[in-house]
Amino acid sequence: MYARQMLETHPRKPVADADVLVACIEACHACAQSCTACADACLGEQEIGMLIRCIRLNQDCEDICAITGAMLSRQTEPDWHLMRRQLEACAMSCRICGDECGRHGDRHAHCRICAEACRACEEACNRMITAVPA
Amino acid sequence: MYARQMLETHPRKPVADADVLVACIEACHACAQSCTACADACLGEQEIGMLIRCIRLNQDCEDICAITGAMLSRQTEPDWHLMRRQLEACAMSCRICGDECGRHGDRHAHCRICAEACRACEEACNRMITAVPA
Amino acid sequence: MYARQMLETHPRKPVADADVLVACIEACHACAQSCTACADACLGEQEIGMLIRCIRLNQDCEDICAITGAMLSRQTEPDWHLMRRQLEACAMSCRICGDECGRHGDRHAHCRICAEACRACEEACNRMITAVPA
Amino acid sequence: MYARQMLETHPRKPVADADVLVACIEACHACAQSCTACADACLGEQEIGMLIRCIRLNQDCEDICAITGAMLSRQTEPDWHLMRRQLEACAMSCRICGDECGRHGDRHAHCRICAEACRACEEACNRMITAVPA
Repeated sequence: MYARQMLETHPRKPVADADVLVACIEACHACAQSCTACADACLGEQEIGMLIRCIRLNQDCEDICAITGAMLSRQTEPDWHLMRRQLEACAMSCRICGDECGRHGDRHAHCRICAEACRACEEACNRMITAVPA
Repeated sequence: MYARQMLETHPRKPVADADVLVACIEACHACAQSCTACADACLGEQEIGMLIRCIRLNQDCEDICAITGAMLSRQTEPDWHLMRRQLEACAMSCRICGDECGRHGDRHAHCRICAEACRACEEACNRMITAVPA
Repeated sequence: MYARQMLETHPRKPVADADVLVACIEACHACAQSCTACADACLGEQEIGMLIRCIRLNQDCEDICAITGAMLSRQTEPDWHLMRRQLEACAMSCRICGDECGRHGDRHAHCRICAEACRACEEACNRMITAVPA
Repeated sequence: MYARQMLETHPRKPVADADVLVACIEACHACAQSCTACADACLGEQEIGMLIRCIRLNQDCEDICAITGAMLSRQTEPDWHLMRRQLEACAMSCRICGDECGRHGDRHAHCRICAEACRACEEACNRMITAVPA
Protein backbone atom coordinates (compact mmCIF):
# COMPACT_ATOMS: atom_id res chain seq x y z
CA MET A 1 0.00 0.00 0.00
CA TYR A 2 1.10 3.54 -0.82
CA ALA A 3 -1.33 5.13 1.67
CA ARG A 4 1.35 6.78 3.84
CA GLN A 5 3.32 8.19 0.88
CA MET A 6 0.13 9.48 -0.73
CA LEU A 7 -0.89 11.15 2.54
CA GLU A 8 2.54 12.76 3.05
CA THR A 9 2.56 14.25 -0.47
CA HIS A 10 -1.03 15.53 -0.36
CA PRO A 11 -1.20 19.34 -0.77
CA ARG A 12 -3.55 19.64 2.23
CA LYS A 13 -2.43 18.60 5.69
CA PRO A 14 -4.53 15.84 7.22
CA VAL A 15 -6.43 17.15 10.25
CA ALA A 16 -6.28 13.76 11.96
CA ASP A 17 -3.12 11.99 13.15
CA ALA A 18 -1.36 10.45 10.14
CA ASP A 19 -0.50 7.14 11.86
CA VAL A 20 -4.09 6.56 12.94
CA LEU A 21 -5.39 7.54 9.51
CA VAL A 22 -3.00 5.34 7.52
CA ALA A 23 -3.66 2.39 9.83
CA CYS A 24 -7.40 2.78 9.34
CA ILE A 25 -7.16 3.06 5.53
CA GLU A 26 -5.03 -0.09 5.41
CA ALA A 27 -7.30 -1.98 7.81
CA CYS A 28 -10.36 -1.10 5.72
CA HIS A 29 -8.70 -2.41 2.55
CA ALA A 30 -7.46 -5.56 4.29
CA CYS A 31 -10.89 -6.24 5.80
CA ALA A 32 -12.75 -5.59 2.52
CA GLN A 33 -10.48 -8.07 0.73
CA SER A 34 -10.80 -10.61 3.53
CA CYS A 35 -14.63 -10.36 3.56
CA THR A 36 -14.80 -10.81 -0.23
CA ALA A 37 -12.62 -13.91 0.06
CA CYS A 38 -14.50 -15.31 3.10
CA ALA A 39 -17.93 -14.93 1.45
CA ASP A 40 -16.51 -16.79 -1.55
CA ALA A 41 -14.76 -19.48 0.53
CA CYS A 42 -18.03 -20.10 2.44
CA LEU A 43 -19.79 -20.42 -0.93
CA GLY A 44 -17.32 -23.16 -1.86
CA GLU A 45 -17.87 -25.19 1.36
CA GLN A 46 -19.94 -28.40 1.50
CA GLU A 47 -21.93 -27.42 4.58
CA ILE A 48 -23.03 -24.10 3.17
CA GLY A 49 -26.36 -24.15 5.02
CA MET A 50 -24.61 -23.11 8.25
CA LEU A 51 -22.84 -20.25 6.48
CA ILE A 52 -25.67 -18.29 4.83
CA ARG A 53 -25.66 -15.50 7.44
CA CYS A 54 -21.85 -15.42 7.33
CA ILE A 55 -21.89 -14.92 3.55
CA ARG A 56 -24.50 -12.19 3.81
CA LEU A 57 -22.66 -10.24 6.49
CA ASN A 58 -19.35 -10.62 4.65
CA GLN A 59 -20.95 -9.04 1.57
CA ASP A 60 -22.23 -6.06 3.55
CA CYS A 61 -18.92 -5.67 5.40
CA GLU A 62 -16.93 -5.83 2.16
CA ASP A 63 -19.02 -2.99 0.71
CA ILE A 64 -18.88 -0.84 3.84
CA CYS A 65 -15.11 -1.28 4.41
CA ALA A 66 -14.32 -0.54 0.76
CA ILE A 67 -16.07 2.83 0.72
CA THR A 68 -14.96 3.81 4.23
CA GLY A 69 -11.36 3.22 3.10
CA ALA A 70 -11.99 5.36 0.01
CA MET A 71 -13.55 8.20 2.02
CA LEU A 72 -10.61 8.20 4.45
CA SER A 73 -8.20 8.35 1.49
CA ARG A 74 -9.61 11.77 0.58
CA GLN A 75 -8.19 14.77 2.48
CA THR A 76 -9.70 17.61 0.45
CA GLU A 77 -12.71 19.35 2.07
CA PRO A 78 -13.86 16.47 4.25
CA ASP A 79 -17.07 16.64 6.25
CA TRP A 80 -16.13 15.25 9.64
CA HIS A 81 -19.65 14.64 10.86
CA LEU A 82 -20.25 12.40 7.86
CA MET A 83 -16.87 10.71 8.26
CA ARG A 84 -17.60 9.88 11.90
CA ARG A 85 -21.05 8.54 11.01
CA GLN A 86 -19.62 6.31 8.28
CA LEU A 87 -16.82 5.14 10.60
CA GLU A 88 -19.45 4.18 13.19
CA ALA A 89 -21.31 2.11 10.57
CA CYS A 90 -18.02 0.49 9.57
CA ALA A 91 -17.03 -0.35 13.17
CA MET A 92 -20.49 -1.86 13.76
CA SER A 93 -20.29 -3.88 10.55
CA CYS A 94 -16.86 -5.24 11.50
CA ARG A 95 -18.09 -6.18 14.97
CA ILE A 96 -21.20 -8.00 13.69
CA CYS A 97 -19.39 -9.72 10.81
CA GLY A 98 -16.38 -10.59 12.98
CA ASP A 99 -18.70 -12.15 15.61
CA GLU A 100 -20.42 -14.28 12.96
CA CYS A 101 -17.11 -15.35 11.36
CA GLY A 102 -15.77 -16.14 14.84
CA ARG A 103 -18.63 -18.64 15.36
CA HIS A 104 -17.30 -20.70 12.42
CA GLY A 105 -13.59 -20.24 13.19
CA ASP A 106 -13.13 -23.74 14.63
CA ARG A 107 -14.46 -25.46 11.51
CA HIS A 108 -13.27 -23.02 8.84
CA ALA A 109 -9.85 -21.37 9.00
CA HIS A 110 -10.92 -18.70 6.48
CA CYS A 111 -13.63 -17.61 8.93
CA ARG A 112 -11.08 -17.45 11.76
CA ILE A 113 -8.73 -15.28 9.70
CA CYS A 114 -11.58 -13.06 8.50
CA ALA A 115 -12.75 -12.59 12.11
CA GLU A 116 -9.23 -11.36 12.87
CA ALA A 117 -9.35 -8.90 9.94
CA CYS A 118 -12.76 -7.64 11.11
CA ARG A 119 -11.60 -7.12 14.69
CA ALA A 120 -8.47 -5.25 13.54
CA CYS A 121 -10.62 -3.02 11.33
CA GLU A 122 -13.17 -2.42 14.09
CA GLU A 123 -10.36 -1.26 16.41
CA ALA A 124 -8.79 0.93 13.72
CA CYS A 125 -12.18 2.57 13.05
CA ASN A 126 -12.77 3.17 16.75
CA ARG A 127 -9.33 4.78 17.10
CA MET A 128 -10.06 6.89 14.01
CA ILE A 129 -13.40 8.01 15.45
CA THR A 130 -11.62 9.46 18.49
CA ALA A 131 -9.06 11.15 16.18
CA VAL A 132 -11.70 12.87 14.02
CA PRO A 133 -11.96 16.60 14.84
CA ALA A 134 -15.08 17.39 16.91
CA MET B 1 -34.98 -1.09 -12.74
CA TYR B 2 -36.09 -4.61 -11.88
CA ALA B 3 -36.01 -3.98 -8.10
CA ARG B 4 -39.73 -4.66 -7.50
CA GLN B 5 -39.80 -7.86 -9.60
CA MET B 6 -36.63 -9.11 -7.91
CA LEU B 7 -38.13 -8.44 -4.49
CA GLU B 8 -41.42 -10.16 -5.32
CA THR B 9 -39.67 -13.30 -6.56
CA HIS B 10 -37.22 -13.54 -3.66
CA PRO B 11 -37.62 -16.78 -1.65
CA ARG B 12 -37.64 -14.88 1.64
CA LYS B 13 -40.35 -12.33 2.41
CA PRO B 14 -39.03 -8.81 3.01
CA VAL B 15 -39.60 -7.78 6.62
CA ALA B 16 -40.06 -4.14 5.64
CA ASP B 17 -42.84 -2.72 3.48
CA ALA B 18 -42.10 -3.52 -0.17
CA ASP B 19 -43.11 -0.10 -1.53
CA VAL B 20 -40.83 1.74 0.89
CA LEU B 21 -37.99 -0.70 0.22
CA VAL B 22 -38.22 -0.53 -3.59
CA ALA B 23 -38.46 3.26 -3.50
CA CYS B 24 -35.32 3.46 -1.34
CA ILE B 25 -33.32 1.06 -3.55
CA GLU B 26 -34.26 3.07 -6.65
CA ALA B 27 -33.52 6.41 -4.94
CA CYS B 28 -30.07 5.17 -3.86
CA HIS B 29 -29.20 4.11 -7.42
CA ALA B 30 -30.55 7.36 -8.90
CA CYS B 31 -28.62 9.46 -6.37
CA ALA B 32 -25.38 7.49 -6.82
CA GLN B 33 -25.56 8.03 -10.59
CA SER B 34 -26.43 11.70 -10.18
CA CYS B 35 -23.53 12.30 -7.76
CA THR B 36 -21.05 10.58 -10.11
CA ALA B 37 -22.28 12.79 -12.96
CA CYS B 38 -22.32 15.99 -10.87
CA ALA B 39 -18.75 15.49 -9.59
CA ASP B 40 -17.70 15.02 -13.20
CA ALA B 41 -19.73 17.97 -14.52
CA CYS B 42 -18.20 20.21 -11.82
CA LEU B 43 -14.76 18.95 -12.92
CA GLY B 44 -15.58 20.13 -16.46
CA GLU B 45 -16.62 23.66 -15.39
CA GLN B 46 -14.44 26.76 -15.85
CA GLU B 47 -14.92 28.11 -12.32
CA ILE B 48 -13.91 24.88 -10.65
CA GLY B 49 -12.40 26.64 -7.63
CA MET B 50 -15.89 27.22 -6.21
CA LEU B 51 -16.80 23.58 -6.70
CA ILE B 52 -14.03 21.67 -4.88
CA ARG B 53 -16.17 20.90 -1.84
CA CYS B 54 -19.09 19.98 -4.11
CA ILE B 55 -16.91 17.48 -6.01
CA ARG B 56 -15.61 15.96 -2.78
CA LEU B 57 -19.04 15.50 -1.23
CA ASN B 58 -20.44 14.10 -4.48
CA GLN B 59 -17.72 11.45 -4.44
CA ASP B 60 -18.51 10.42 -0.86
CA CYS B 61 -22.25 10.46 -1.54
CA GLU B 62 -21.86 8.36 -4.70
CA ASP B 63 -19.96 5.71 -2.71
CA ILE B 64 -22.38 5.68 0.23
CA CYS B 65 -25.56 5.58 -1.91
CA ALA B 66 -24.17 2.79 -4.09
CA ILE B 67 -23.50 0.42 -1.21
CA THR B 68 -26.64 1.36 0.72
CA GLY B 69 -28.65 0.45 -2.38
CA ALA B 70 -26.76 -2.85 -2.63
CA MET B 71 -27.33 -3.69 1.05
CA LEU B 72 -31.06 -2.95 0.72
CA SER B 73 -31.21 -5.23 -2.34
CA ARG B 74 -30.28 -8.20 -0.12
CA GLN B 75 -33.16 -9.85 1.82
CA THR B 76 -31.36 -12.95 3.12
CA GLU B 77 -30.35 -12.81 6.81
CA PRO B 78 -30.13 -9.04 7.14
CA ASP B 79 -28.87 -7.40 10.32
CA TRP B 80 -31.31 -4.58 10.93
CA HIS B 81 -29.16 -2.68 13.41
CA LEU B 82 -26.47 -2.42 10.77
CA MET B 83 -28.99 -1.56 8.06
CA ARG B 84 -30.37 1.28 10.16
CA ARG B 85 -26.88 2.59 10.92
CA GLN B 86 -25.92 2.59 7.24
CA LEU B 87 -29.22 4.22 6.27
CA GLU B 88 -28.51 6.99 8.81
CA ALA B 89 -25.08 7.57 7.23
CA CYS B 90 -26.72 7.64 3.79
CA ALA B 91 -29.44 10.10 4.83
CA MET B 92 -26.78 12.36 6.38
CA SER B 93 -24.61 12.17 3.28
CA CYS B 94 -27.55 13.07 1.03
CA ARG B 95 -28.47 16.02 3.26
CA ILE B 96 -24.91 17.41 3.35
CA CYS B 97 -24.25 16.82 -0.36
CA GLY B 98 -27.70 18.09 -1.35
CA ASP B 99 -27.14 21.28 0.67
CA GLU B 100 -23.78 21.89 -1.05
CA CYS B 101 -25.18 21.17 -4.54
CA GLY B 102 -28.12 23.46 -3.73
CA ARG B 103 -25.69 26.35 -3.14
CA HIS B 104 -24.56 26.10 -6.79
CA GLY B 105 -28.00 25.40 -8.26
CA ASP B 106 -28.49 28.89 -9.66
CA ARG B 107 -25.26 28.82 -11.64
CA HIS B 108 -25.08 25.13 -12.53
CA ALA B 109 -28.18 23.19 -13.56
CA HIS B 110 -26.41 19.86 -12.89
CA CYS B 111 -25.98 20.91 -9.25
CA ARG B 112 -29.67 21.83 -9.03
CA ILE B 113 -30.74 18.45 -10.42
CA CYS B 114 -28.27 16.59 -8.19
CA ALA B 115 -29.59 18.45 -5.12
CA GLU B 116 -33.04 17.15 -6.09
CA ALA B 117 -31.72 13.58 -6.35
CA CYS B 118 -30.03 13.94 -2.95
CA ARG B 119 -33.17 15.23 -1.26
CA ALA B 120 -35.30 12.46 -2.75
CA CYS B 121 -32.79 9.89 -1.52
CA GLU B 122 -32.56 11.47 1.94
CA GLU B 123 -36.37 11.25 2.27
CA ALA B 124 -36.43 7.67 0.99
CA CYS B 125 -33.75 6.68 3.52
CA ASN B 126 -35.62 8.38 6.36
CA ARG B 127 -38.83 6.56 5.43
CA MET B 128 -36.89 3.31 5.23
CA ILE B 129 -35.35 3.89 8.69
CA THR B 130 -38.85 4.05 10.21
CA ALA B 131 -39.82 0.88 8.28
CA VAL B 132 -36.87 -1.15 9.54
CA PRO B 133 -37.90 -3.66 12.26
CA ALA B 134 -36.88 -2.52 15.76
CA MET C 1 -32.86 8.06 -12.77
CA TYR C 2 -31.60 11.56 -13.56
CA ALA C 3 -29.05 10.33 -16.13
CA ARG C 4 -30.56 12.21 -19.10
CA GLN C 5 -30.94 15.51 -17.23
CA MET C 6 -27.42 15.23 -15.85
CA LEU C 7 -26.07 14.58 -19.35
CA GLU C 8 -27.97 17.50 -20.88
CA THR C 9 -26.69 19.96 -18.27
CA HIS C 10 -23.06 18.79 -18.39
CA PRO C 11 -20.67 21.58 -19.50
CA ARG C 12 -19.01 19.29 -22.04
CA LYS C 13 -20.96 17.84 -24.93
CA PRO C 14 -21.05 14.03 -24.98
CA VAL C 15 -19.17 12.70 -28.00
CA ALA C 16 -21.45 9.69 -28.26
CA ASP C 17 -25.17 9.74 -29.06
CA ALA C 18 -27.07 10.83 -25.91
CA ASP C 19 -29.90 8.28 -26.30
CA VAL C 20 -27.47 5.38 -26.60
CA LEU C 21 -25.41 6.68 -23.69
CA VAL C 22 -28.35 7.24 -21.33
CA ALA C 23 -29.81 3.82 -22.19
CA CYS C 24 -26.49 2.16 -21.41
CA ILE C 25 -26.02 3.98 -18.07
CA GLU C 26 -29.55 2.99 -17.01
CA ALA C 27 -29.09 -0.61 -18.17
CA CYS C 28 -25.84 -0.91 -16.20
CA HIS C 29 -27.52 0.32 -13.00
CA ALA C 30 -30.57 -1.92 -13.52
CA CYS C 31 -28.37 -4.96 -14.19
CA ALA C 32 -26.08 -4.27 -11.22
CA GLN C 33 -29.11 -4.06 -8.91
CA SER C 34 -30.66 -7.17 -10.43
CA CYS C 35 -27.44 -9.19 -10.05
CA THR C 36 -27.06 -8.12 -6.39
CA ALA C 37 -30.63 -9.22 -5.74
CA CYS C 38 -30.32 -12.49 -7.72
CA ALA C 39 -27.11 -13.55 -5.92
CA ASP C 40 -28.92 -12.90 -2.65
CA ALA C 41 -32.15 -14.64 -3.71
CA CYS C 42 -30.12 -17.70 -4.78
CA LEU C 43 -28.45 -17.62 -1.35
CA GLY C 44 -31.91 -17.82 0.24
CA GLU C 45 -33.05 -20.85 -1.83
CA GLN C 46 -33.24 -24.42 -0.44
CA GLU C 47 -31.46 -26.07 -3.40
CA ILE C 48 -28.48 -23.73 -3.24
CA GLY C 49 -26.05 -26.43 -4.48
CA MET C 50 -27.30 -25.92 -8.04
CA LEU C 51 -26.85 -22.16 -7.78
CA ILE C 52 -23.22 -21.72 -6.68
CA ARG C 53 -21.98 -20.74 -10.14
CA CYS C 54 -24.99 -18.45 -10.58
CA ILE C 55 -24.19 -16.63 -7.31
CA ARG C 56 -20.53 -16.27 -8.28
CA LEU C 57 -21.25 -14.86 -11.73
CA ASN C 58 -23.91 -12.51 -10.35
CA GLN C 59 -21.31 -11.08 -7.95
CA ASP C 60 -18.82 -10.44 -10.74
CA CYS C 61 -21.51 -9.00 -13.01
CA GLU C 62 -22.79 -6.70 -10.25
CA ASP C 63 -19.28 -5.29 -9.77
CA ILE C 64 -18.57 -4.87 -13.48
CA CYS C 65 -21.93 -3.26 -14.33
CA ALA C 66 -21.68 -0.85 -11.39
CA ILE C 67 -18.33 0.59 -12.43
CA THR C 68 -19.13 0.57 -16.17
CA GLY C 69 -22.22 2.65 -15.39
CA ALA C 70 -20.09 5.02 -13.31
CA MET C 71 -17.45 5.38 -16.06
CA LEU C 72 -20.15 6.14 -18.65
CA SER C 73 -21.62 8.78 -16.32
CA ARG C 74 -18.38 10.78 -16.65
CA GLN C 75 -18.08 13.02 -19.75
CA THR C 76 -14.95 14.99 -18.80
CA GLU C 77 -11.75 13.88 -20.56
CA PRO C 78 -12.75 10.29 -21.29
CA ASP C 79 -10.33 7.80 -22.77
CA TRP C 80 -12.34 6.00 -25.42
CA HIS C 81 -9.98 3.06 -25.84
CA LEU C 82 -10.40 2.29 -22.16
CA MET C 83 -14.15 2.86 -22.29
CA ARG C 84 -14.49 0.42 -25.19
CA ARG C 85 -12.36 -2.18 -23.39
CA GLN C 86 -14.46 -1.90 -20.22
CA LEU C 87 -17.69 -2.04 -22.24
CA GLU C 88 -16.45 -5.25 -23.89
CA ALA C 89 -15.78 -6.79 -20.47
CA CYS C 90 -19.25 -5.67 -19.33
CA ALA C 91 -21.00 -7.11 -22.41
CA MET C 92 -19.15 -10.41 -21.92
CA SER C 93 -20.04 -10.51 -18.22
CA CYS C 94 -23.73 -9.88 -19.00
CA ARG C 95 -23.73 -12.63 -21.63
CA ILE C 96 -22.09 -15.22 -19.36
CA CYS C 97 -24.16 -14.29 -16.29
CA GLY C 98 -27.37 -14.05 -18.34
CA ASP C 99 -26.75 -17.52 -19.81
CA GLU C 100 -26.24 -19.00 -16.34
CA CYS C 101 -29.31 -17.25 -14.89
CA GLY C 102 -31.30 -18.41 -17.94
CA ARG C 103 -30.51 -22.04 -17.06
CA HIS C 104 -32.37 -21.62 -13.75
CA GLY C 105 -35.20 -19.47 -15.11
CA ASP C 106 -37.78 -22.28 -15.14
CA ARG C 107 -37.28 -23.06 -11.44
CA HIS C 108 -36.49 -19.60 -10.10
CA ALA C 109 -38.34 -16.52 -11.33
CA HIS C 110 -35.60 -14.22 -9.96
CA CYS C 111 -33.10 -15.93 -12.26
CA ARG C 112 -35.45 -15.47 -15.23
CA ILE C 113 -35.84 -11.76 -14.51
CA CYS C 114 -32.11 -11.32 -13.91
CA ALA C 115 -31.35 -13.06 -17.23
CA GLU C 116 -33.58 -10.45 -18.85
CA ALA C 117 -31.70 -7.61 -17.14
CA CYS C 118 -28.38 -9.11 -18.25
CA ARG C 119 -29.48 -9.45 -21.88
CA ALA C 120 -30.80 -5.89 -21.96
CA CYS C 121 -27.49 -4.64 -20.54
CA GLU C 122 -25.44 -6.75 -22.96
CA GLU C 123 -27.35 -5.22 -25.88
CA ALA C 124 -27.01 -1.69 -24.49
CA CYS C 125 -23.24 -2.18 -24.08
CA ASN C 126 -22.89 -3.53 -27.61
CA ARG C 127 -24.79 -0.54 -29.00
CA MET C 128 -22.60 1.75 -26.92
CA ILE C 129 -19.42 0.09 -28.25
CA THR C 130 -20.44 0.97 -31.82
CA ALA C 131 -21.26 4.55 -30.70
CA VAL C 132 -17.86 5.13 -29.06
CA PRO C 133 -15.59 7.34 -31.23
CA ALA C 134 -12.89 5.32 -33.04
CA MET D 1 -3.53 -7.80 3.78
CA TYR D 2 -4.77 -11.31 4.55
CA ALA D 3 -4.96 -12.29 0.85
CA ARG D 4 -2.45 -15.14 1.06
CA GLN D 5 -3.93 -16.67 4.22
CA MET D 6 -7.42 -16.43 2.78
CA LEU D 7 -6.28 -18.12 -0.42
CA GLU D 8 -4.50 -20.92 1.45
CA THR D 9 -7.56 -21.70 3.57
CA HIS D 10 -10.06 -21.61 0.70
CA PRO D 11 -11.86 -24.96 0.20
CA ARG D 12 -11.18 -24.89 -3.55
CA LYS D 13 -7.65 -24.92 -4.91
CA PRO D 14 -6.76 -21.87 -6.99
CA VAL D 15 -6.16 -22.86 -10.61
CA ALA D 16 -3.59 -20.11 -11.07
CA ASP D 17 -0.24 -19.83 -9.30
CA ALA D 18 -0.83 -18.56 -5.75
CA ASP D 19 2.14 -16.13 -5.72
CA VAL D 20 1.03 -14.46 -8.95
CA LEU D 21 -2.57 -14.32 -7.75
CA VAL D 22 -1.80 -12.85 -4.32
CA ALA D 23 0.57 -10.28 -5.85
CA CYS D 24 -2.14 -9.19 -8.30
CA ILE D 25 -4.85 -8.90 -5.61
CA GLU D 26 -2.52 -6.78 -3.46
CA ALA D 27 -1.42 -4.62 -6.41
CA CYS D 28 -5.07 -3.96 -7.35
CA HIS D 29 -5.91 -2.82 -3.80
CA ALA D 30 -2.77 -0.68 -3.55
CA CYS D 31 -3.45 0.94 -6.93
CA ALA D 32 -7.14 1.56 -6.19
CA GLN D 33 -6.18 3.31 -2.93
CA SER D 34 -3.44 5.28 -4.63
CA CYS D 35 -5.75 6.45 -7.44
CA THR D 36 -8.43 7.55 -4.95
CA ALA D 37 -5.80 9.54 -3.06
CA CYS D 38 -4.20 11.00 -6.22
CA ALA D 39 -7.54 12.19 -7.65
CA ASP D 40 -8.19 13.86 -4.31
CA ALA D 41 -4.69 15.34 -4.00
CA CYS D 42 -5.00 16.78 -7.53
CA LEU D 43 -8.35 18.27 -6.49
CA GLY D 44 -6.56 20.05 -3.63
CA GLU D 45 -3.83 21.57 -5.85
CA GLN D 46 -3.77 25.24 -6.91
CA GLU D 47 -3.06 24.56 -10.59
CA ILE D 48 -5.95 22.15 -10.97
CA GLY D 49 -6.54 23.11 -14.62
CA MET D 50 -3.57 20.98 -15.68
CA LEU D 51 -4.86 18.01 -13.69
CA ILE D 52 -8.43 17.53 -14.96
CA ARG D 53 -7.55 14.54 -17.16
CA CYS D 54 -5.42 13.09 -14.35
CA ILE D 55 -8.35 13.28 -11.92
CA ARG D 56 -10.71 11.68 -14.44
CA LEU D 57 -8.39 8.78 -15.24
CA ASN D 58 -7.64 8.23 -11.55
CA GLN D 59 -11.37 7.87 -10.90
CA ASP D 60 -11.78 5.28 -13.65
CA CYS D 61 -8.64 3.42 -12.56
CA GLU D 62 -9.77 3.37 -8.92
CA ASP D 63 -13.08 1.77 -9.93
CA ILE D 64 -11.51 -0.78 -12.29
CA CYS D 65 -8.73 -1.84 -9.88
CA ALA D 66 -11.17 -2.20 -6.98
CA ILE D 67 -13.47 -4.64 -8.78
CA THR D 68 -10.63 -6.53 -10.49
CA GLY D 69 -9.12 -7.11 -7.04
CA ALA D 70 -12.51 -8.32 -5.77
CA MET D 71 -13.00 -10.69 -8.73
CA LEU D 72 -9.53 -12.17 -8.21
CA SER D 73 -10.31 -12.69 -4.52
CA ARG D 74 -13.06 -15.15 -5.51
CA GLN D 75 -11.94 -18.74 -6.26
CA THR D 76 -15.33 -20.47 -6.45
CA GLU D 77 -16.56 -21.22 -10.00
CA PRO D 78 -14.61 -18.53 -11.83
CA ASP D 79 -15.10 -17.86 -15.52
CA TRP D 80 -11.58 -17.48 -16.87
CA HIS D 81 -12.56 -15.83 -20.15
CA LEU D 82 -14.25 -13.07 -18.19
CA MET D 83 -11.37 -12.84 -15.72
CA ARG D 84 -8.88 -12.41 -18.57
CA ARG D 85 -11.04 -9.77 -20.23
CA GLN D 86 -11.35 -7.78 -16.99
CA LEU D 87 -7.61 -8.11 -16.33
CA GLU D 88 -6.94 -6.71 -19.81
CA ALA D 89 -9.17 -3.72 -19.06
CA CYS D 90 -7.36 -3.26 -15.73
CA ALA D 91 -3.88 -3.44 -17.29
CA MET D 92 -4.93 -0.90 -19.94
CA SER D 93 -6.39 1.42 -17.31
CA CYS D 94 -3.20 1.26 -15.23
CA ARG D 95 -1.07 1.98 -18.31
CA ILE D 96 -3.15 4.99 -19.38
CA CYS D 97 -3.54 6.39 -15.86
CA GLY D 98 0.11 5.72 -15.02
CA ASP D 99 1.22 7.56 -18.18
CA GLU D 100 -0.93 10.58 -17.29
CA CYS D 101 0.25 10.61 -13.64
CA GLY D 102 3.83 10.27 -14.89
CA ARG D 103 3.44 13.52 -16.87
CA HIS D 104 2.87 15.41 -13.60
CA GLY D 105 5.42 13.50 -11.53
CA ASP D 106 8.02 16.28 -11.58
CA ARG D 107 5.61 18.86 -10.16
CA HIS D 108 3.49 16.66 -7.91
CA ALA D 109 5.01 13.88 -5.82
CA HIS D 110 1.60 12.24 -5.36
CA CYS D 111 1.37 11.83 -9.14
CA ARG D 112 4.84 10.27 -9.21
CA ILE D 113 3.96 7.76 -6.49
CA CYS D 114 0.61 6.99 -8.10
CA ALA D 115 2.34 6.37 -11.46
CA GLU D 116 4.51 3.84 -9.63
CA ALA D 117 1.43 2.12 -8.16
CA CYS D 118 -0.18 2.02 -11.62
CA ARG D 119 2.88 0.51 -13.26
CA ALA D 120 3.22 -2.14 -10.56
CA CYS D 121 -0.44 -3.04 -10.98
CA GLU D 122 -0.18 -3.11 -14.78
CA GLU D 123 2.71 -5.59 -14.50
CA ALA D 124 0.90 -7.71 -11.93
CA CYS D 125 -2.18 -7.87 -14.20
CA ASN D 126 -0.07 -8.82 -17.21
CA ARG D 127 1.60 -11.61 -15.23
CA MET D 128 -1.80 -12.76 -14.03
CA ILE D 129 -3.16 -12.81 -17.61
CA THR D 130 -0.44 -15.29 -18.60
CA ALA D 131 -1.21 -17.38 -15.47
CA VAL D 132 -4.96 -17.64 -16.21
CA PRO D 133 -5.88 -21.10 -17.59
CA ALA D 134 -6.52 -21.03 -21.37
